[in-house]
Amino acid sequence: MEISRRGQTVQASPIRKLKPYADRALEKGIKIYFLNIGDPDIPTPRPILDAVRSFNDRILAYGPAQGFLELRQAIADYFNGYRIPLTSENVIITCGGSEAILFTFAVVGDPGDEIIIPEPFYTNYNGYASLANIKIVPLTLKVENGYRLPSVEEIEAKITRRTKAILLCSPNNPTGTVYSPQELDRVVSIGVKHDLFLIGDEVYKEFIYDGLTHKSILEYEEAKDRVVVVDSISKRFSCCGARIGAVITRNERVYQAALKFAQARLCPPTIEQKAAIAAYKMGLGYFEPVRQEYERRRDVLYEGLCSIPGLVVGKPQGAFYMSVRLPVKDAERFVIWMLTDFALDKETVMVAPGQGFYSTPGKGLDEIRIAYVLNESDLKRALVIFKAGLEKYKATIEA
Amino acid sequence: MEISRRGQTVQASPIRKLKPYADRALEKGIKIYFLNIGDPDIPTPRPILDAVRSFNDRILAYGPAQGFLELRQAIADYFNGYRIPLTSENVIITCGGSEAILFTFAVVGDPGDEIIIPEPFYTNYNGYASLANIKIVPLTLKVENGYRLPSVEEIEAKITRRTKAILLCSPNNPTGTVYSPQELDRVVSIGVKHDLFLIGDEVYKEFIYDGLTHKSILEYEEAKDRVVVVDSISKRFSCCGARIGAVITRNERVYQAALKFAQARLCPPTIEQKAAIAAYKMGLGYFEPVRQEYERRRDVLYEGLCSIPGLVVGKPQGAFYMSVRLPVKDAERFVIWMLTDFALDKETVMVAPGQGFYSTPGKGLDEIRIAYVLNESDLKRALVIFKAGLEKYKATIEA
Repeated sequence: MEISRRGQTVQASPIRKLKPYADRALEKGIKIYFLNIGDPDIPTPRPILDAVRSFNDRILAYGPAQGFLELRQAIADYFNGYRIPLTSENVIITCGGSEAILFTFAVVGDPGDEIIIPEPFYTNYNGYASLANIKIVPLTLKVENGYRLPSVEEIEAKITRRTKAILLCSPNNPTGTVYSPQELDRVVSIGVKHDLFLIGDEVYKEFIYDGLTHKSILEYEEAKDRVVVVDSISKRFSCCGARIGAVITRNERVYQAALKFAQARLCPPTIEQKAAIAAYKMGLGYFEPVRQEYERRRDVLYEGLCSIPGLVVGKPQGAFYMSVRLPVKDAERFVIWMLTDFALDKETVMVAPGQGFYSTPGKGLDEIRIAYVLNESDLKRALVIFKAGLEKYKATIEA
Repeated sequence: MEISRRGQTVQASPIRKLKPYADRALEKGIKIYFLNIGDPDIPTPRPILDAVRSFNDRILAYGPAQGFLELRQAIADYFNGYRIPLTSENVIITCGGSEAILFTFAVVGDPGDEIIIPEPFYTNYNGYASLANIKIVPLTLKVENGYRLPSVEEIEAKITRRTKAILLCSPNNPTGTVYSPQELDRVVSIGVKHDLFLIGDEVYKEFIYDGLTHKSILEYEEAKDRVVVVDSISKRFSCCGARIGAVITRNERVYQAALKFAQARLCPPTIEQKAAIAAYKMGLGYFEPVRQEYERRRDVLYEGLCSIPGLVVGKPQGAFYMSVRLPVKDAERFVIWMLTDFALDKETVMVAPGQGFYSTPGKGLDEIRIAYVLNESDLKRALVIFKAGLEKYKATIEA
């Protein structure tokens, strides 16, 4: 009686697995600045909380498998606001963006099929690839050139007869890169040429800096039948615990298959769907002050990190993550050490080790991901602590 | 660019797929008695709704991947109340019982591995088997002998080298059968002898009639390492839209693997976990009046159905479902006809066709599942309509 191979080999979340070390630090009375997980400190918008508190049904009953029509319409309207033509019939509400990833992987591929993903990538793709037995084929990017996508030839070299899709996350988790229209054109044309699905993870769509605008792969009319977007309200409305996401596609066969998987799990959470409707009704105007707040934080963090000797930092144009190369051999060991052996005035910092964001063995060992989900003043303090910790670690542990 | 085979072959939910016919009937002004889906009309307990309405966090943030400790402890306490020794460390909170099924399938088996399940069975196992590429091996039961489990030899005949587990749902959906201690003993001893996992779906644990008591497979100390129970608060507390379930196991390797899949999807819904804590705090005393209500409904429905000529009805001892053989060739056609072509004083009845609860092709064609989730008065009216509809169908369509 042995558990499955996928159960044995599935990756422990690099974002989550170090939590026990954090718990022990907290027990010792250490204050931790949590920059390891994208759980924003921006207050959840009032209309969401009000909708939760005014839930007035007599019975907390099942909703439709594909989600409430009003929410699907609100999401279609939201994209229409970005001049992307969608209808409620293109949207399936899911239990978080997570479930949208699962359904999408399962609909585009069978066990052993391949999806090409630029790495470093959102680490939880690994968990779903294990669950659905999809093989992630990484396309390794480099911090030195800002994690830009490689040439057509380099991308095409990854395509095999098992390749079903290319997945692009933009703005990117964990790098913060926003792919340019030219980079998207390149990938879309490869998708068309090789008859592949194009999966877009654009959950950080609103968080774009330096005057850039976001281009969605949903904007490519010539590829509209091959595009599946996984979406989530978690970051958009600072409500990660709500677990409301969506599969968005204009491919009817993909939609119907995802719907059948959705039927098997009955429905997404009822209360949070109602809260999400209230959120979307705020309109696109909600996002600008939040976007500005994250842009300021990015600037504070980027400047602070650039002043620490030995770091290689890619300046992100979007999302709220930064991938950083450290002057250490084993970044995970450093991250743990910061929790177990270091504190500055009883305070320390937690970040995520980079290795879990790669699927190529040995990559990312000296990297970390930092989520700038704390306010400027906390970020500045965290930078002081981080710098002091890194200096001490290098002077004592890796001396 | 073709979607996956699993996406092409995954079953449409027999509970959900006929909804468009129901919608059209509603549009025509027909009132429908919905007996097709286990969405109870028992009001959600006040403490659950109060907990939702008093949600007072500033940020609707992620919780732990395995669920809040307080809820895991509350669930352990609940089972302790039935003298089943569990701790919070044996519980992982999931997004509905649905996700618990998915994690359990993925942890016990790899693609192509087999799980033996008595049929008819809860139809959504099919959806998750497709998603996880698990092969369900059905063990066909018969209404004529009350859906009792067959002999050791007949069960063992289904075991191959790919068999990883036997799944028992008791009280059963869709038959209402409650397996006797002797039947459980038989399956547990087979599990031990052949070194298999034993999966228990006991979400209807409280709904047991005729003075019977529920025996859980968690009570078998000799098999404690091989038992995984999928649990849910949906029916227990009449809150199907909450999407809170659990994987329960004392097998540490199963737990750790399920936890890693749980980490990949970050966390279950935050608000409903707090509501669930409030629910469990009501104590076991909450269940008795609800149980009595369902038992009365079962009696009303069973007597009513027995008075309709040509039906074969298994008298359920638990849950709130009844599987019924109809004197028709194609029960799905009849179910649709009831929605499209029949009404009695502008009212009709919707039930679930039986075929989707079987995985053996051709089985269940003349069966339906009825969920007695309406009050006695509505059930009585539904019986009148159902009987009239069946008579007319037989006289006109299958004459």
